[in-house]
Amino acid sequence: MIRVTVWNEFRHEKTKESVRKLYPEGMHALIAGFLSEQPDMTVRTATLDEPDHGLTDEVLSATDVLIWWGHTAHGEVRDDIVEKVYDRVLEGMGLIALHSAHASKIFMKLCGTRSSMLSWRENHELERLFIVNPGHPITAGLPEYFEIPQEETYGEYFNIPQPDELVFISWFSGGEVFRSGFTLTRGSGHIFYFRPGHETFPIFHQKEVQTVITNAVRWAAAPENKPAITYRRNIPLPRP
Amino acid sequence: MIRVTVWNEFRHEKTKESVRKLYPEGMHALIAGFLSEQPDMTVRTATLDEPDHGLTDEVLSATDVLIWWGHTAHGEVRDDIVEKVYDRVLEGMGLIALHSAHASKIFMKLCGTRSSMLSWRENHELERLFIVNPGHPITAGLPEYFEIPQEETYGEYFNIPQPDELVFISWFSGGEVFRSGFTLTRGSGHIFYFRPGHETFPIFHQKEVQTVITNAVRWAAAPENKPAITYRRNIPLPRP
Amino acid sequence: MIRVTVWNEFRHEKTKESVRKLYPEGMHALIAGFLSEQPDMTVRTATLDEPDHGLTDEVLSATDVLIWWGHTAHGEVRDDIVEKVYDRVLEGMGLIALHSAHASKIFMKLCGTRSSMLSWRENHELERLFIVNPGHPITAGLPEYFEIPQEETYGEYFNIPQPDELVFISWFSGGEVFRSGFTLTRGSGHIFYFRPGHETFPIFHQKEVQTVITNAVRWAAAPENKPAITYRRNIPLPRP
Amino acid sequence: MIRVTVWNEFRHEKTKESVRKLYPEGMHALIAGFLSEQPDMTVRTATLDEPDHGLTDEVLSATDVLIWWGHTAHGEVRDDIVEKVYDRVLEGMGLIALHSAHASKIFMKLCGTRSSMLSWRENHELERLFIVNPGHPITAGLPEYFEIPQEETYGEYFNIPQPDELVFISWFSGGEVFRSGFTLTRGSGHIFYFRPGHETFPIFHQKEVQTVITNAVRWAAAPENKPAITYRRNIPLPRP
Repeated sequence: MIRVTVWNEFRHEKTKESVRKLYPEGMHALIAGFLSEQPDMTVRTATLDEPDHGLTDEVLSATDVLIWWGHTAHGEVRDDIVEKVYDRVLEGMGLIALHSAHASKIFMKLCGTRSSMLSWRENHELERLFIVNPGHPITAGLPEYFEIPQEETYGEYFNIPQPDELVFISWFSGGEVFRSGFTLTRGSGHIFYFRPGHETFPIFHQKEVQTVITNAVRWAAAPENKPAITYRRNIPLPRP
Repeated sequence: MIRVTVWNEFRHEKTKESVRKLYPEGMHALIAGFLSEQPDMTVRTATLDEPDHGLTDEVLSATDVLIWWGHTAHGEVRDDIVEKVYDRVLEGMGLIALHSAHASKIFMKLCGTRSSMLSWRENHELERLFIVNPGHPITAGLPEYFEIPQEETYGEYFNIPQPDELVFISWFSGGEVFRSGFTLTRGSGHIFYFRPGHETFPIFHQKEVQTVITNAVRWAAAPENKPAITYRRNIPLPRP
Repeated sequence: MIRVTVWNEFRHEKTKESVRKLYPEGMHALIAGFLSEQPDMTVRTATLDEPDHGLTDEVLSATDVLIWWGHTAHGEVRDDIVEKVYDRVLEGMGLIALHSAHASKIFMKLCGTRSSMLSWRENHELERLFIVNPGHPITAGLPEYFEIPQEETYGEYFNIPQPDELVFISWFSGGEVFRSGFTLTRGSGHIFYFRPGHETFPIFHQKEVQTVITNAVRWAAAPENKPAITYRRNIPLPRP
Repeated sequence: MIRVTVWNEFRHEKTKESVRKLYPEGMHALIAGFLSEQPDMTVRTATLDEPDHGLTDEVLSATDVLIWWGHTAHGEVRDDIVEKVYDRVLEGMGLIALHSAHASKIFMKLCGTRSSMLSWRENHELERLFIVNPGHPITAGLPEYFEIPQEETYGEYFNIPQPDELVFISWFSGGEVFRSGFTLTRGSGHIFYFRPGHETFPIFHQKEVQTVITNAVRWAAAPENKPAITYRRNIPLPRP
């Protein structure tokens, strides 16, 4: 079983009527809902305003893949919690950063760049996502491209490191392109960034988006028996 | 079920007593043997001297992952068969190239380099393989490094493209290093090269080597429902 | 001095009035023209219908960077010449493949994929190229994006290996995206693919396109004193 | 002219007689010395105990490539200075991290991993560095491998992100291997890590090491007219 924790800032849903309508129990609840239907996943949720943001040592050590959505309150996430998540990723916990999580403390720290920096427009335009890595497990079950009828636009240049694998490139009707899905490896941890997910549109209700997230969870989960790494200090290896 | 075909040149086993002792039915038989014990794999074998080298259209289209061992008779592999294997890899069939398969027609063609070129010594020295990508599924169940007591030595420079993922680096007691395990993506196909496997040593009897190959089969198998790619010729996409 | 050879199929210019108007002496002549103005480059040209396609051993060994444009006659390029170019690239000669050269024998062979496969439309639409690697020397002197008012459209999926460095992504007004500029390393050779350059539009007259090609020549040129690689056969390294 | 700043912690030279003998004016002085002989470089130095560690805004904005050596006092480097260096790298300043700088705040932050973590042994053994990317400009003028007769040993696993380009792999006589030279791209900045350089051996006196550092400076220097990136906020691109 893959143990998933869906983390959500969970603020917009409380303050904006338009968002509450789309996600009455929060985006995390909806995401946890469709993942829970998978026979190989057990899912819990955590949110910013819970004690320790819901990310206690117990929760983190029992999490194989962490999904992250944040936007308006990145600055309120405690640095000591970010450090713990960081170490868990390096140790092998998968991380899936959704949409505005590109500017979260944890994602920026793992990127090693100011990944908060990109162009954006709050509009209602078409996004078309093309697959550029059709053998990647994250694309299973998708058509060669799919559309999101109304989305916020993101545009290049996106201040990220060169991805380990580029999976999706978006075309926007207003004239922008964007690297919308890519992977990074950090230590033993697998990271996937996925661009769609603006809170004012029903993005996470869309079937293709759910397929991507579900695939990404399976891809990001580390093998159970991954190698135990030691860092030897002045300890010689056995002489041949 | 992952459908595996183990291809072997199967010449040394017939002509060299030392090799026959290690692999009385051929290296392919031994490899097929330990893979067959996996509950999620069905395994067949194919060899150079069968009609069409055992790689008929029927076999290839029913193969999810192809394992390749060749050495003395690379030149005898028919070009039309190589083309078929090439197209199947681009279409999504996994390929695992073992040891001297670095100089096989199919692997060189997929590399886009003269990957036949490297330094080597037929000696009996120690190889120590270090994991440099400990979250990679191919390393599951391994210690952080493992040794092969007696092997042929390969040395850099190895004329390969920059790997998509470097997984193993070997240390040899005679003073060489080698990029011994790495992945390439070609079209929808996943390729893994693994260095060990000289025919005069019991390499494929060794547990760690079997673990690597078993993991690699699972990693290289494409998802069943991978996206169907079309190449549009003068066909516009629907206008937004 | 960087010794550049601009190779052109040079057929469309002879048979299509519209192309001849744009390039009365051939695309190669125009490209050689603007490169010749660089103080650090000496430039010659070569075309398909010359003996040995103009790519004799003398020419190839005196070429640091080869630029390639071909389209209608890829099949007429002799395989033995392709082999020679291939070995020169692995040895360190730079290669810049322009537009429909994605389907040339030499580029496909270096890719290790069927890079001929992509979507295309002969239309007259806008291409907008975004820089996604702003520190790359190939982007020097460019704005963060630039436009080609009328071009043939190419669309993903483009059957190429994962680039070593992705430099440009194109947006097309008809709804497509494309990885329009990227690098590959093969042996000691640096390769750059650049998408624009349809023969019926004045692409190579455009300043930004000339800047990209000029930068790419400098980037692709190998250092004069690159390491001499040997491939040792049963020759031990000195024991420490 | 490439404006280089050589930064050194400059503590061991003051406290250890063995180090002072090798570098009476500090490692930075020796490195600045051989770089100053290059006709295309102007070189200054900066050290930890100067005001602002010698890295004032004026110095940083006038630096094209920063070289960094630190070991015993990583923790004393001020966080606000690290932030400034970080932003300058993303903006295009090159960074060359030497030896124990793998554990410096700035390098770890750019890696996005705990690159402080590796195995090491303070011994006096042979290091042999193999080139695995012979076309890379950083290798110009080198033999295919070179040796350092006595060095501290570093061993894998080294907790770094997958390099953009792997250039050197080291073999150590005690049985370890190490990714000893590699590049990363962060924003517009080029980063090179180079392993050798333990303070108790005359590493920076060695010709091959000087060649690598000199080449790396030229490679890491951004083009003068690199693209100016803007991050548009709710500003549409011109409609086609």
